[in-house]
Amino acid sequence: MRILKMGQVGGGIGAFIGEVHRKAARMDGYVQVVAGAFDINPERSLEQGKILGIAPERCYGTYQEMIENESKLPPGERVDFISICTPNSTHFPIAKACLEAGFNVMCEKPMTMTVEQANELEKLVKKSGKTFGLLHTYTGYPMVKLAKKMVADGDIGKVRKVVVRYPQGWLGEVARSNPSLGLWRTDPKQSGASCCMGDIGVHAANLAEYITGLKISQVLADLTSYLKGKLDDDGNVLLHFNGGAKGVLTATQIGPGEENNLHIFVYGEKKTIVWYQENPNYLRVLSDSEPEQVWKRGNPYVAAKSPAAGRCTRTPCGHPEAFLEAFANHYKNFTDTIRAKEIGEKPTDLELDFPGVKDGVRGMKFINAVVESSKGGNVWKKI
Amino acid sequence: MRILKMGQVGGGIGAFIGEVHRKAARMDGYVQVVAGAFDINPERSLEQGKILGIAPERCYGTYQEMIENESKLPPGERVDFISICTPNSTHFPIAKACLEAGFNVMCEKPMTMTVEQANELEKLVKKSGKTFGLLHTYTGYPMVKLAKKMVADGDIGKVRKVVVRYPQGWLGEVARSNPSLGLWRTDPKQSGASCCMGDIGVHAANLAEYITGLKISQVLADLTSYLKGKLDDDGNVLLHFNGGAKGVLTATQIGPGEENNLHIFVYGEKKTIVWYQENPNYLRVLSDSEPEQVWKRGNPYVAAKSPAAGRCTRTPCGHPEAFLEAFANHYKNFTDTIRAKEIGEKPTDLELDFPGVKDGVRGMKFINAVVESSKGGNVWKKI
Amino acid sequence: MRILKMGQVGGGIGAFIGEVHRKAARMDGYVQVVAGAFDINPERSLEQGKILGIAPERCYGTYQEMIENESKLPPGERVDFISICTPNSTHFPIAKACLEAGFNVMCEKPMTMTVEQANELEKLVKKSGKTFGLLHTYTGYPMVKLAKKMVADGDIGKVRKVVVRYPQGWLGEVARSNPSLGLWRTDPKQSGASCCMGDIGVHAANLAEYITGLKISQVLADLTSYLKGKLDDDGNVLLHFNGGAKGVLTATQIGPGEENNLHIFVYGEKKTIVWYQENPNYLRVLSDSEPEQVWKRGNPYVAAKSPAAGRCTRTPCGHPEAFLEAFANHYKNFTDTIRAKEIGEKPTDLELDFPGVKDGVRGMKFINAVVESSKGGNVWKKI
Amino acid sequence: MRILKMGQVGGGIGAFIGEVHRKAARMDGYVQVVAGAFDINPERSLEQGKILGIAPERCYGTYQEMIENESKLPPGERVDFISICTPNSTHFPIAKACLEAGFNVMCEKPMTMTVEQANELEKLVKKSGKTFGLLHTYTGYPMVKLAKKMVADGDIGKVRKVVVRYPQGWLGEVARSNPSLGLWRTDPKQSGASCCMGDIGVHAANLAEYITGLKISQVLADLTSYLKGKLDDDGNVLLHFNGGAKGVLTATQIGPGEENNLHIFVYGEKKTIVWYQENPNYLRVLSDSEPEQVWKRGNPYVAAKSPAAGRCTRTPCGHPEAFLEAFANHYKNFTDTIRAKEIGEKPTDLELDFPGVKDGVRGMKFINAVVESSKGGNVWKKI
Repeated sequence: MRILKMGQVGGGIGAFIGEVHRKAARMDGYVQVVAGAFDINPERSLEQGKILGIAPERCYGTYQEMIENESKLPPGERVDFISICTPNSTHFPIAKACLEAGFNVMCEKPMTMTVEQANELEKLVKKSGKTFGLLHTYTGYPMVKLAKKMVADGDIGKVRKVVVRYPQGWLGEVARSNPSLGLWRTDPKQSGASCCMGDIGVHAANLAEYITGLKISQVLADLTSYLKGKLDDDGNVLLHFNGGAKGVLTATQIGPGEENNLHIFVYGEKKTIVWYQENPNYLRVLSDSEPEQVWKRGNPYVAAKSPAAGRCTRTPCGHPEAFLEAFANHYKNFTDTIRAKEIGEKPTDLELDFPGVKDGVRGMKFINAVVESSKGGNVWKKI
Repeated sequence: MRILKMGQVGGGIGAFIGEVHRKAARMDGYVQVVAGAFDINPERSLEQGKILGIAPERCYGTYQEMIENESKLPPGERVDFISICTPNSTHFPIAKACLEAGFNVMCEKPMTMTVEQANELEKLVKKSGKTFGLLHTYTGYPMVKLAKKMVADGDIGKVRKVVVRYPQGWLGEVARSNPSLGLWRTDPKQSGASCCMGDIGVHAANLAEYITGLKISQVLADLTSYLKGKLDDDGNVLLHFNGGAKGVLTATQIGPGEENNLHIFVYGEKKTIVWYQENPNYLRVLSDSEPEQVWKRGNPYVAAKSPAAGRCTRTPCGHPEAFLEAFANHYKNFTDTIRAKEIGEKPTDLELDFPGVKDGVRGMKFINAVVESSKGGNVWKKI
Repeated sequence: MRILKMGQVGGGIGAFIGEVHRKAARMDGYVQVVAGAFDINPERSLEQGKILGIAPERCYGTYQEMIENESKLPPGERVDFISICTPNSTHFPIAKACLEAGFNVMCEKPMTMTVEQANELEKLVKKSGKTFGLLHTYTGYPMVKLAKKMVADGDIGKVRKVVVRYPQGWLGEVARSNPSLGLWRTDPKQSGASCCMGDIGVHAANLAEYITGLKISQVLADLTSYLKGKLDDDGNVLLHFNGGAKGVLTATQIGPGEENNLHIFVYGEKKTIVWYQENPNYLRVLSDSEPEQVWKRGNPYVAAKSPAAGRCTRTPCGHPEAFLEAFANHYKNFTDTIRAKEIGEKPTDLELDFPGVKDGVRGMKFINAVVESSKGGNVWKKI
Repeated sequence: MRILKMGQVGGGIGAFIGEVHRKAARMDGYVQVVAGAFDINPERSLEQGKILGIAPERCYGTYQEMIENESKLPPGERVDFISICTPNSTHFPIAKACLEAGFNVMCEKPMTMTVEQANELEKLVKKSGKTFGLLHTYTGYPMVKLAKKMVADGDIGKVRKVVVRYPQGWLGEVARSNPSLGLWRTDPKQSGASCCMGDIGVHAANLAEYITGLKISQVLADLTSYLKGKLDDDGNVLLHFNGGAKGVLTATQIGPGEENNLHIFVYGEKKTIVWYQENPNYLRVLSDSEPEQVWKRGNPYVAAKSPAAGRCTRTPCGHPEAFLEAFANHYKNFTDTIRAKEIGEKPTDLELDFPGVKDGVRGMKFINAVVESSKGGNVWKKI
């Protein structure tokens, strides 16, 4: 397997998510970070590159510079893909530039600031023929992939109802412990149209659509800014899916002591599926007529049911996997897709099992719809 | 403590909830069932009375007969209160007749079929001076009383958000295993305006109001009948509370494998409270700045914090209490209130801590509002 | 069903376990407390009787008096059985006297102070033909009965290993908060040969034998008194069962924050069974080749598998049952056995499913063996 | 921070633990695998090296060859340390050779086959001045480090009792599904004196000693081979610690459905600590007088209490970490120690917080003692 060369935009010293991208990318040993525009300050970019063991000449001050210089290197030497881990508002222009220059792109979420940009990017990806990944982390968990398979196989019957919740508490904590602190998350210039829904609500929507295989057709939202910011820090959303299923999505960033408690209940005609992100190695299946089943990651029966889950398993049962591995799974499938296309093969469905530009478009439309619904007086908005 | 004499309407052979009332009433030994109109069939009523060890002359064929005859007995001998455990549509006329005849009443939920009846009953209770209890079981749990106290004391700060869920699966199971079975729950004549919301949604609303001390000011509901019955078997409701708190209430009766999974998250400005009915001896308190606390029923620190919880505790910590005890707690406070009034004392707040006619009125208004909201196209309805 | 008349020895004002006996006995309405020697002080006995609504002439000062007077009453009027809820050291003489006078007996644990007394009582029970119950509470839980059935049916294969733990913390807490308090539990005159093993270790042994259907053949024990009392407050015991299974039993009364955390793992050749007393409505079944199963009390599949569990179920699934119900189950089966014998029928196995004198003998032998093993330098002792 | 160069012995194609070592080593980006004797078959070693992107000239057929050639390279180029991931019986000779040649060593567990070898290695490490790490994975978890700190700070009072359990089921599953399969684990030539105790019991002992800061002074063991192999597949062990604490250690490899369920209860005079490896982000602290506390990885209060835990934290609270991260933590501290020594600094206690040769010696003595105890008829053996 060819070790792919990764370039990174963002991920400078002290940047959390940039380091997560690197950890995830190199987890399996098939990706090497060889270049980066880590910081808008060239010296700090160089410093980060030095720490990371990257050749100084490939530590760039801007993404434009990186694109320009890397493009000049011969195919086997230049970066195979570029990871974008910069502030939200810059994702779109960077992604656009990378694609136009012919680079594959792995992009941190959110993909863009507007639906229009998202649509434009989708066209661009199609036109470029490049591989585009978007870090909706939570669909990378093996037990989420197992859940998707169960639904697809009809094990739980037709989906009737989805309850998906994503409570966090950190923003409330910031406001409480640092009342004077500027809350950039609630600044539209940096977060776009929504804070809570844009940051985490969209993850919950993505998870629900991934597992059920359904699309949210319309939403009715009640968003709130408890912290009196410019954007929502909390939201409750009624969901209608195509095909008649309904649901509730509720997310918050001001729930004290809630850490990252994303969880989902999918109610089918025959069975119910339950999954909690904070205890991700287990998938519960409820039934009226027989004992609850607890499926446990790493067992042969999981891989037998869901090759996608089996493929994304690194340690045996009882040796828990967690967040970084879920993140790494997206890198794994993303890079395998690049490798397949590189040698002229059609990527398999297993390889293509990572979130991409379509998820980004869906996400922007979801955010847009909930914001409009709430502003419009809590009325239904089609996605 | 005087052993009170209880008469029962309903609760015939094989009737589940009637037996629960008896078990709960006699748990502490201070209530004795001495009379009953257990069945509309006088012979079967007599048979049930015989099984229960009740004098044949006090086994009545109708509640009217019971009221008439018991009224003639001298005060120390006649029933002190009447428990109503009949089909929903009969609660109101029976309760009315009992009150008018001067009997205290413990009434199974729902109190009435309409808001008008509820209002009428409220006036009647006031006028009669009698004690009226309504079996909203779940506020009988000690840890729910503890939760209420924590909120009242400001321990979690001002309440911002409530998420209360009440998923069950039994109605779906009935439909699945007995498709030809008439589902009486979904028949408006027997269930009133709503099935799922009337049966369990109202419990969830009651629990939320009890713990937070707030009132739901308006609702926006999306009710569904997945089973294609005449009434809802599922509902998702956005909540607004007076004072600015918001919330979500979701209930279902078609969630496969969901048993009686009522649970609530109350998000305050400082802390979060979490309680699950199916594991009722524990109350979790979440905080951003310190470890989660798990308060455990039966410990001195619980009683020290909440005398209401301490008073409703029968076994030491680690010796779990459950549903019947919660039910019994309402009987305990209800009968202690009767005893206090009997000797001319004002019942204490601890004694008065049981659901009554005001909860019944609130409940009917809640049901009415969610049904109207849903029928009206998912719009806000004031309660 | 005939309502049986119960007399009680002990259970005076403020006595915890005596009230638990009464609550459990009257839970189903088929037992009535009509007489008692509640307190060694006749006036206080009378006072308790008054509170309980018992005729003054049947409130006795001593158990001898109760036996004498009740014996004179006609069969339908006199007590049908006597519950013994007195301090440990008096269980034997009272039980003996009751049996000799022809009364059925329900006895609080421990049955006796010595193995010799236990053997004598066993003979006496046999000779008398009376029904004798012993309150090993924990085998009263439905899910424990289900576990026993699974093992008996071979569902988990031949039992290989048992790990049973019973940690509590209250004795350590007493010592910590009231260092000057006399710890009667650690006084051999009141507790017999052992404190921790006699009080709770024996419950754990009883539970292990009940579920597995095996007998502990020998023990190797390491007992400790961390509180420097005369008797053990902690013990670790290696177990050998007949047929080759092995195990570990560990109990403590000085584990801070441990409430009543009895739990058991039974490892068979094919599957594993797990049960926790503090969350008693669930039985987990583990397997290497399929998802874990969580069996939940109150479901039809539980009653279908174990009629003994189904019979001891009062509320539907999701409406949890707990300690008092487990206690009541023993009273239910005990009194049904009395009723069956009364009408000349052979009690069924389901009715006979309550702990009796044989469990008492086993218990005393177990306690004796672990004490001798520990005193003898941690060597194997046969039971 | 200098990126260290790692050589690996073992870890060929398909070898599970060798890949875990690589994943863990490169997680933080400060270790690069540059050489390896991955397989005893030189061609397959080369093939693995190719997959890993290693220069062909540094893919060796034997560890001797690797040591010889790498020694010839200049300091900045040659491997900084060698990871040993070969079959158990070869750990000692390879480690010895590496140390004698002046290489730092990270060794898979068990360190040696005998106590004598362990003692010899300890001397060799001391003499060589090299850094030696041993992969007792479980002490790498942040919450284990937090537990250690709590005990060291006296938060739970003097430790009285330890219950540590390590149940697995895989060996029973192998025997069940492949009865003809040679069970190498139960072959003394490959596993040494013990299978279950050598493989996992020793982890449990190491965990108990690490958290409590105490040493096990003597053991009394009852080992069993349920599978009728030459070595134990199960064991129950009574423990005595220096200073008077006692405990129980029980481990099994034949518990159906048990995955890797290592867990520990540490009972102090004041509080109890509970940790489960399969749900490793949480540490429970029990107390008699206040609610249970659940400490959650990634929170500032954890790092404030235990810098060792804080230092070994990569993702925020609620973004779970797991097995690979625990593994990586040992690599992190091990390599930081090498770096510190390299520049002439004394490694800090935080850097030195990884298992080493002393743990290996303790482990071998523990294994030796339990085997002798069991063979000797379940008698106490000093360690």
